[in-house]
Amino acid sequence: MSDSRRAHAGPGDGSSAGRPSPAEHARTVAASGNSGTLASLTDGGDPWASMVAYGLLQNGSPVLCVSDMALHGRNLAAEGRASIAIASPVAPGADPADSPRLTLAGSVERPVGAEDAAAKATFRAAVPSASVFEDFDDFTRWVLRIESVRWVGGFARMAWVEPDEYAAASPDPVSPAAGPAVAHVNADHADALLAMARRLGGRADADAAECMAADRYGLDLRTETPEGLRPARVEFAEPITAASQLRAATVELARRARA
Amino acid sequence: MSDSRRAHAGPGDGSSAGRPSPAEHARTVAASGNSGTLASLTDGGDPWASMVAYGLLQNGSPVLCVSDMALHGRNLAAEGRASIAIASPVAPGADPADSPRLTLAGSVERPVGAEDAAAKATFRAAVPSASVFEDFDDFTRWVLRIESVRWVGGFARMAWVEPDEYAAASPDPVSPAAGPAVAHVNADHADALLAMARRLGGRADADAAECMAADRYGLDLRTETPEGLRPARVEFAEPITAASQLRAATVELARRARA
Repeated sequence: MSDSRRAHAGPGDGSSAGRPSPAEHARTVAASGNSGTLASLTDGGDPWASMVAYGLLQNGSPVLCVSDMALHGRNLAAEGRASIAIASPVAPGADPADSPRLTLAGSVERPVGAEDAAAKATFRAAVPSASVFEDFDDFTRWVLRIESVRWVGGFARMAWVEPDEYAAASPDPVSPAAGPAVAHVNADHADALLAMARRLGGRADADAAECMAADRYGLDLRTETPEGLRPARVEFAEPITAASQLRAATVELARRARA
Repeated sequence: MSDSRRAHAGPGDGSSAGRPSPAEHARTVAASGNSGTLASLTDGGDPWASMVAYGLLQNGSPVLCVSDMALHGRNLAAEGRASIAIASPVAPGADPADSPRLTLAGSVERPVGAEDAAAKATFRAAVPSASVFEDFDDFTRWVLRIESVRWVGGFARMAWVEPDEYAAASPDPVSPAAGPAVAHVNADHADALLAMARRLGGRADADAAECMAADRYGLDLRTETPEGLRPARVEFAEPITAASQLRAATVELARRARA
């Protein structure tokens, strides 16, 4: 499969300093919720899609806890090959096809010993209703051993991520909580965004700039230029570690843009 | 598979007059959005979960339009066995595991002639960005020929639905838009709900009642009784055809409850 993977790697594949790597994007999507869609195999070998709740181990591996009487539970018990699709929450009015999402594929195994204890704690922390059913005899915990990771950031932004890079990466601590700050800077500081785009974002000809997203490394802008809408990227002086630091980091960007 | 299906049919299986049938619930979930998760088979026979946009033909069959270069597009071109999981939008604070969802399973085929024209119109109406890519040479339209339908209404509410019943049923025209009316009746008419539960819902011992959902046939209530929380169902005099009729139908229920 590796040939076809290379053939379909998208323009977002290369990681670069100053912006999240595909592995970080993938971890961020995985950490954005607690439910996804499992693809398992029926006893006839057919692909079966069904919703599952999940938690994530420290290495980003999903933990499931499913009934052995449910069809997908019977599927996994008989055949461990599986994948899980996870979608980031879609902003109101946004196109789901342009929203970040992820497929983690491999095989499920029953965790044992210390890993099972970690898996149980992980699942319970992620899924509030777990305490109702996690100890039922007919529920089984599974850990997905990840063999391939496909991240899609939106239209024409996608990458295969090496499983060890996915395991080593950390989810972005800023972007999931950045919505209010992004809305604020667009509402009240359009002039500062335009200065950033012109001086720091390589869009000297921009006539207007809007912030589309923020992450630990900087801001994604969309600029209006004589050639049409163009993206721009501006980077913080240092990566930040929480959305609460966005204000100070953005003020610093604005100061530099006007220096 | 039919034996195991029967064995795992849940308490929600039986349809009854005065409430949506499982087939109607399934059609309602299918009609609640335009994106789901496809399970397809890789060239190695592994199950692959990936997000897809869809529209629905009149008979409820999903129409997809996917790139032949995307992994799931290559999967479908080589092997048509597939299923699609669709989840209703989850209300804020609700448990995704207790939310309505659906799996439609079967095989995809390329529509031809009049069906392809209908499929194209259906997909374009459901997916605004379709006009950008629907005529690209490397995109293929597929229709899922449904062989099995699994509806899950929430905890312990689930059913296998016969494909011909699914095809013949219509989505509920009320429940997707009932949220504001449900919130209103809970905020301002708790006394009327309690009267309904006592007189019309078989909960003469109820101390309080809350409306959880509304559909074309009536209201789902949750009542507080000396034995704890208990569900109750109250039915409109006649099925309604739009959420705009909820007010009049609920006023009539309240009148009957106090007659």
